[in-house]
Amino acid sequence: MTDAPVTAAILVIGDEILSGRTKDKNIGYIAEYLTAAGIDLREVRIVPDVEEEIVGAVNALRSRYTYLFTTGGIGPTHDDITADCVAKAFGVPLNLDQRAVDMLLMRMKREDLNEARLRMARIPEGASLVENPISRAPGFRIGNVIVMAGVPAIMQAMLDNVVPGLVKGTPVTSEAVDATGVPEGAYAAGLKAVAERFPALSIGSYPSYSASGFTNQIVIRGRDLPAIAEAAIAIRALIEQLRAGAERPAS
Amino acid sequence: MTDAPVTAAILVIGDEILSGRTKDKNIGYIAEYLTAAGIDLREVRIVPDVEEEIVGAVNALRSRYTYLFTTGGIGPTHDDITADCVAKAFGVPLNLDQRAVDMLLMRMKREDLNEARLRMARIPEGASLVENPISRAPGFRIGNVIVMAGVPAIMQAMLDNVVPGLVKGTPVTSEAVDATGVPEGAYAAGLKAVAERFPALSIGSYPSYSASGFTNQIVIRGRDLPAIAEAAIAIRALIEQLRAGAERPAS
Repeated sequence: MTDAPVTAAILVIGDEILSGRTKDKNIGYIAEYLTAAGIDLREVRIVPDVEEEIVGAVNALRSRYTYLFTTGGIGPTHDDITADCVAKAFGVPLNLDQRAVDMLLMRMKREDLNEARLRMARIPEGASLVENPISRAPGFRIGNVIVMAGVPAIMQAMLDNVVPGLVKGTPVTSEAVDATGVPEGAYAAGLKAVAERFPALSIGSYPSYSASGFTNQIVIRGRDLPAIAEAAIAIRALIEQLRAGAERPAS
Repeated sequence: MTDAPVTAAILVIGDEILSGRTKDKNIGYIAEYLTAAGIDLREVRIVPDVEEEIVGAVNALRSRYTYLFTTGGIGPTHDDITADCVAKAFGVPLNLDQRAVDMLLMRMKREDLNEARLRMARIPEGASLVENPISRAPGFRIGNVIVMAGVPAIMQAMLDNVVPGLVKGTPVTSEAVDATGVPEGAYAAGLKAVAERFPALSIGSYPSYSASGFTNQIVIRGRDLPAIAEAAIAIRALIEQLRAGAERPAS
């Protein structure tokens, strides 16, 4: 564990997410996972299966954050070009990797290891492998970039395998105050005053809306537990005071 | 409608998405909506509630794509800074807009229009407003940037109000071939050959995995309907031929 902030970005690779045909299930999962591990997710990008877009995004994000996690594009078909792009971004060769071949052989016979399947064993030079207990074709880590599958069950298993080996910071703690019934516009000024008293905390107000109307949550996030507790007390007092007052519009 | 490709990006603004506490429901919805409307979604970014990150992303994305859609950060609380950032990105003043004030007055009394609520009526100079039938605080459009709420029901209503006025291209059509039971690695070579015969189409293979094993879908996307039909026939023939052959490993 380190005191310096440990940061991360996610790069989701895939036309099927951008077309809306497949709904991404990985971003929210990884976000929650990294937050719990003490790694601050700072940016996410989704790009199509286009080499220059992937290479550009890998280089932009790996230089800005402690870690970059990619999902998607590591299967055996022609549209799976993530390994090629990551090798290109690092300027290293992409060779058939015997360790990866051995992993594939745990699940299939040598005679079934055709050219397409061997694509999944091409790993950028210098990368370590990330095991895939489900379909065996591995992910990999090169430098600060961790390349994972797009299929959620496989991605989740890879995350379990790779995160224990990463540098982590102090996890962010959050505390939520339910402000439902008090409109955001009524507590905004008081909330801003609390936020100014605790500059090291991140305090946000999150409305949601359903057929039964608005509900609001105020969330305090940070690493200073006494400050979080103190801010929560101040915010609860503010909400209670307003709740006791007149009814007002819902936002 | 235009023959030139009409492109778009989405910028999701919000710490709560990056922390994983709130799971984004807007990206997939907008992606599907734009695809149906003939607008190609090419990139998505998620950034925190930090001015320089938002301004940087707005400028990067608005210069690259026909349209940029933003979600989040237009409420009355201190963490709602999207309008400020978009005004800054365009280098225009952010003034109290009487049209927006009138919209807020449809839902609340003048005496309830406090400073925080009036924040929601600050609109970059030169922007047109996007109506919000639910809570009235409007979105806006300035240049090619469309600024919407983060609450899904409100965002969806804003999209309905704004998309009819946009330039659109020929919608992309897609056809899916179910390849379940035939592993990706078995059809990858044949699929690549079909993809090479139809360079104007985008052909992808999408495995999913559940407790009952892998299912694979091959999706053909493009604007040339006869070519899509021809490619689908070729891919179905390939899959049927392999299905008739020996059982093989599942990927």
